[in-house]
Amino acid sequence: MTIKVAIAGASGYAGGEILRLLLNHPAYLAGELEIGALTASSTVGSTLGELMPHLPQLADRVIEDTTPEVLSGHDVVFLGLPHGFSAEIALQLGHDVTVIDCAADFRLQNAADWERYYGSEHQGTWPYGIPEMPGHREQLKGAKRIAVPGCFPTGATLALLPAVQAGLIEPNVSVVSITGVSGAGKKANVAMLGAETMGSLKAYNVAGKHRHTPEIAQNLAEVTAEKVTVSFTPVLAPLPRGILTTATAPLKGEVTAEQARKVYEDFYAQETFVHVLAPGVQPQTQSVVGSNMCHVQVEVDADSGKLLLTSVIDNLTKGTAGAAIQCMNLSLGYAESAGLPQAGVAP
Amino acid sequence: MTIKVAIAGASGYAGGEILRLLLNHPAYLAGELEIGALTASSTVGSTLGELMPHLPQLADRVIEDTTPEVLSGHDVVFLGLPHGFSAEIALQLGHDVTVIDCAADFRLQNAADWERYYGSEHQGTWPYGIPEMPGHREQLKGAKRIAVPGCFPTGATLALLPAVQAGLIEPNVSVVSITGVSGAGKKANVAMLGAETMGSLKAYNVAGKHRHTPEIAQNLAEVTAEKVTVSFTPVLAPLPRGILTTATAPLKGEVTAEQARKVYEDFYAQETFVHVLAPGVQPQTQSVVGSNMCHVQVEVDADSGKLLLTSVIDNLTKGTAGAAIQCMNLSLGYAESAGLPQAGVAP
Amino acid sequence: MTIKVAIAGASGYAGGEILRLLLNHPAYLAGELEIGALTASSTVGSTLGELMPHLPQLADRVIEDTTPEVLSGHDVVFLGLPHGFSAEIALQLGHDVTVIDCAADFRLQNAADWERYYGSEHQGTWPYGIPEMPGHREQLKGAKRIAVPGCFPTGATLALLPAVQAGLIEPNVSVVSITGVSGAGKKANVAMLGAETMGSLKAYNVAGKHRHTPEIAQNLAEVTAEKVTVSFTPVLAPLPRGILTTATAPLKGEVTAEQARKVYEDFYAQETFVHVLAPGVQPQTQSVVGSNMCHVQVEVDADSGKLLLTSVIDNLTKGTAGAAIQCMNLSLGYAESAGLPQAGVAP
Amino acid sequence: MTIKVAIAGASGYAGGEILRLLLNHPAYLAGELEIGALTASSTVGSTLGELMPHLPQLADRVIEDTTPEVLSGHDVVFLGLPHGFSAEIALQLGHDVTVIDCAADFRLQNAADWERYYGSEHQGTWPYGIPEMPGHREQLKGAKRIAVPGCFPTGATLALLPAVQAGLIEPNVSVVSITGVSGAGKKANVAMLGAETMGSLKAYNVAGKHRHTPEIAQNLAEVTAEKVTVSFTPVLAPLPRGILTTATAPLKGEVTAEQARKVYEDFYAQETFVHVLAPGVQPQTQSVVGSNMCHVQVEVDADSGKLLLTSVIDNLTKGTAGAAIQCMNLSLGYAESAGLPQAGVAP
Repeated sequence: MTIKVAIAGASGYAGGEILRLLLNHPAYLAGELEIGALTASSTVGSTLGELMPHLPQLADRVIEDTTPEVLSGHDVVFLGLPHGFSAEIALQLGHDVTVIDCAADFRLQNAADWERYYGSEHQGTWPYGIPEMPGHREQLKGAKRIAVPGCFPTGATLALLPAVQAGLIEPNVSVVSITGVSGAGKKANVAMLGAETMGSLKAYNVAGKHRHTPEIAQNLAEVTAEKVTVSFTPVLAPLPRGILTTATAPLKGEVTAEQARKVYEDFYAQETFVHVLAPGVQPQTQSVVGSNMCHVQVEVDADSGKLLLTSVIDNLTKGTAGAAIQCMNLSLGYAESAGLPQAGVAP
Repeated sequence: MTIKVAIAGASGYAGGEILRLLLNHPAYLAGELEIGALTASSTVGSTLGELMPHLPQLADRVIEDTTPEVLSGHDVVFLGLPHGFSAEIALQLGHDVTVIDCAADFRLQNAADWERYYGSEHQGTWPYGIPEMPGHREQLKGAKRIAVPGCFPTGATLALLPAVQAGLIEPNVSVVSITGVSGAGKKANVAMLGAETMGSLKAYNVAGKHRHTPEIAQNLAEVTAEKVTVSFTPVLAPLPRGILTTATAPLKGEVTAEQARKVYEDFYAQETFVHVLAPGVQPQTQSVVGSNMCHVQVEVDADSGKLLLTSVIDNLTKGTAGAAIQCMNLSLGYAESAGLPQAGVAP
Repeated sequence: MTIKVAIAGASGYAGGEILRLLLNHPAYLAGELEIGALTASSTVGSTLGELMPHLPQLADRVIEDTTPEVLSGHDVVFLGLPHGFSAEIALQLGHDVTVIDCAADFRLQNAADWERYYGSEHQGTWPYGIPEMPGHREQLKGAKRIAVPGCFPTGATLALLPAVQAGLIEPNVSVVSITGVSGAGKKANVAMLGAETMGSLKAYNVAGKHRHTPEIAQNLAEVTAEKVTVSFTPVLAPLPRGILTTATAPLKGEVTAEQARKVYEDFYAQETFVHVLAPGVQPQTQSVVGSNMCHVQVEVDADSGKLLLTSVIDNLTKGTAGAAIQCMNLSLGYAESAGLPQAGVAP
Repeated sequence: MTIKVAIAGASGYAGGEILRLLLNHPAYLAGELEIGALTASSTVGSTLGELMPHLPQLADRVIEDTTPEVLSGHDVVFLGLPHGFSAEIALQLGHDVTVIDCAADFRLQNAADWERYYGSEHQGTWPYGIPEMPGHREQLKGAKRIAVPGCFPTGATLALLPAVQAGLIEPNVSVVSITGVSGAGKKANVAMLGAETMGSLKAYNVAGKHRHTPEIAQNLAEVTAEKVTVSFTPVLAPLPRGILTTATAPLKGEVTAEQARKVYEDFYAQETFVHVLAPGVQPQTQSVVGSNMCHVQVEVDADSGKLLLTSVIDNLTKGTAGAAIQCMNLSLGYAESAGLPQAGVAP
């Protein structure tokens, strides 16, 4: 039986990246998975040849309207929509459909956090799509509703989780995440013009104002009983794709570089998509462009009494669309790594 | 039987891209093709984990010295070496080995052209690896020696060939090709520093001085009996990958946009890796990053009496390593498109 | 007596660059020139601290509405408005006011050209602001109405004019101009987002469709009696500022490199803002960032029988705002080079 | 009497930027300051026309060798040399010469710090060139020996100093500074190639290994009696110029946003080159390109109990050459701001 997949928000960056990955998925190449409806809002009626010239195989496909009717009749629906609208559509889809939501609506467990950060009513919590977090892979296997994590929380969580779980650090973390511009989406916006962003660095939504802050805290709180605090500073940098995360936290006691490294190597020993770099090699975003990898490094700074964690991901791949495919693979019972590149497009 | 592949120059950009593509090649994934010796010169003894962190699967592989002894015993040898040294190594490899040379040594047919542009003795001419040129695919099937074309000639040839063959234009062409910086290779060089190249555009080797000039002329001359002249202006632009080629030539007579388009659509109707864009869509390099595609567009400029051709390729993929894999596929009898992405990594 | 200057369109890129240059103008520093009304449309009521954080001296200035009433009472009015609206405002300003228009409305001499390219009624022709063109400096001295040239025509004209005037080439030119993204202005627009433009090259408005085509032809026709044809191909490249122009045209007879160079050196011998580069040095846009310079180079390509001209300017400075200040200097009787940097901000 | 200025290391980025600023300095424009010897090592005999095409006024100047003999006979010598060699030259210059050293040799007060971080013998401590630090302006007035600060310490110090001095925070700071690539200098180096740095972010010399770490700590220690610790993480980003610094530290008690802002506004009330941004405006590096400004912002993050400071400078201007000129102005008795732009070249 052929699996039929629809993508809502297909003309956005998350939608385009899901399509790029699906076109190389072994189930698609074997004819067992079919790309069905591609929907959006402002681009209805346009072809992918106009909107997504990097996908020539789909050049003649036409964008349809995002409605429950168009999306129904598919086995899997990816949602690459603004939050709010995403929940509205999601809640109208049948229980037999696997819904994989790239928006924020169903990520947070705490309704008060949702209301504070998003200013609307909380619609619920779905299995959260970082399979590398303890217990999550099991929840995602066969799941019919999956919340794909935010791009910053993915990079920060994979960098910090082993150290927090092992108790190497106080869970009182300062996270600075530097992101490429595709993270802002494909919306007309003066602040995101090429002329405004090339050759410039800018912090934004600092000091706890970014909506990914409670999501990072929630993930760390899953592996520690201590109170977690997160100082989160996102920075916009002039590159299309990639997030470099740096995180510092106070060491709880004496920790050697070897001990810290062992914690990370053990934690990720079985993971295909997390690569603990060799000693002395710092991660660079170029290495993961277009891939589903997260590269991680850990360093002890004895002088300042802090542990320093760094990680890189491609915000559109492991940070969004790759994670969505990884979750689809777990939901449908494919090999978890099917269709997901490990090699980055560098330089 | 397993095919064993060696890569000489494995720590350069061409070598790295060949590896990235091989890691996703169906023969490799099926265990029928094996990555053997990886050789270089100045980086001997280093690991790929240090040199090529974007290929985590090969992080532990160690670079060996580039010698005929190390390379012998492989079924296929890719050469990603400087010209001169490339011919020296190539001529010491056995006749049973398939040698795919990314350097210039065996591209030119005319010894005088070689001597004028490269200043050394001509070492011969091998089957030339643009399968889309008339007659070339047949020569490449089963070939044991293949000269991979230069990156600029690939973009210019695919843009111009249909119009020259059809006699739409006088073969008296002005070609301006704008390239990303990876085309200059991975050599320490002040002029190619990030600080010198970011935020800047620069022409170089203009007015017939670039070594790719005679190669473009040679390709066009294969499809016309008229005298070919090429004014070639390469420009360096601040992006890692990609070549945009613009070419103008005088129209021979009245040609409508529809007639010109039909010539291109017919010429490339059976080609997997050349995509003639829809009317009004101009090619952009982003669309082909990491893919083996060439996107082409044709426009009639009646006011100036010229035809305008534009094309984009990724200089490292269709411009070098992708072409090399496409040639390997033809040499070994694999599907021509095996392991070669059609979708670009955009944005 | 203090000269009072207003800027309409002060929150756009041309307006911002005029302000940056005025703040360093000796007349402003001496208190003899005052920055008066700053107007715009969609940003009325905002401060420059929000809109133009690079001008901290003006952080508290507030944007007013663009009306003839607000602009009247100034000695000089710079217009950095969309064409059409620019003419509408210009025609309501008093004859005693010096109006320096950065839009296209009054550049073209031929009404039919205007109507064909802009689709509206022609409003007239003003003295055209390239002082380096024969006869233009004299027209601009004391002029009360000045049309600032387009950015592409400035680069192409300064590259081609000496060769056309001297009859070195047939005025049948192929021009490819590669531009940074600020040329598209500060309007919300998906195609100009950072994610769409970084890491990509794209041709646009090719084959005679770009509105600067007739302006280039008009300028060349001022120095030759022969019929001029212009094939113009603009290309968008990932840098904020800068235009690199390459132009080829058939040589009329034998011309040596020395003869060609002498034509250029003689033509520009007295010019402060055009620098003919030393033999063998190709221009790069980085060298002119923020400066009012045009760097030019000339090369003979004997094999193809063509002359190759290359030039670089900063599209916002010599290409727009710097030219506007240079014209103001001529209009008001200041030193022509007052307030205009010759050194570029490189790297 | 004319002041005669020499620049050692004139073909590097610091040297080039000093020249760019001097060419626009009122003393130079008035003929009271003269640009004398320009020296370097590997580029001796080359012209500035080849090495620094952005300075066309100096195109014919020839680079001389860096020796005490060539440099003697000047009133001011700027040193833009590698540390070690800089001290060697400096210590051979006469006491009557004003020596302004852009290298690190004379910045640190503590010899043990020097030896630990630079691995050689400490050569002494000179007046340290951040005039905005309490007491420093007075030391720099008339000084004959001046140590220009490091680029990272300038950004971090100006961001943190008011909060540390006022006791708003524990001087236990986490600093992440993201820099453009010109900071690495104009040396051939594979890791700094355009292809390696464009489209990529990379942390380096993390966890206390960067040599600017003790310099930041030293500056903060000047305004507090408490023990200072600095966790410093430098990150390389794909832009030519600019440093964005983010710094977090634990709040000592309840501090409101208004209180924190007042501390900053008061501290910098008299400073020309530090601009405290309006509430809600985060600094961006584009705003300070080519200018001598530092833009600073302060935010209270009550949830995490931290203060967040952000600042931007141009690493080559306020971070090096602009600071050097500002120090020269203080040494020679010029207006402190002479020749130093406040407006940035944006976009």
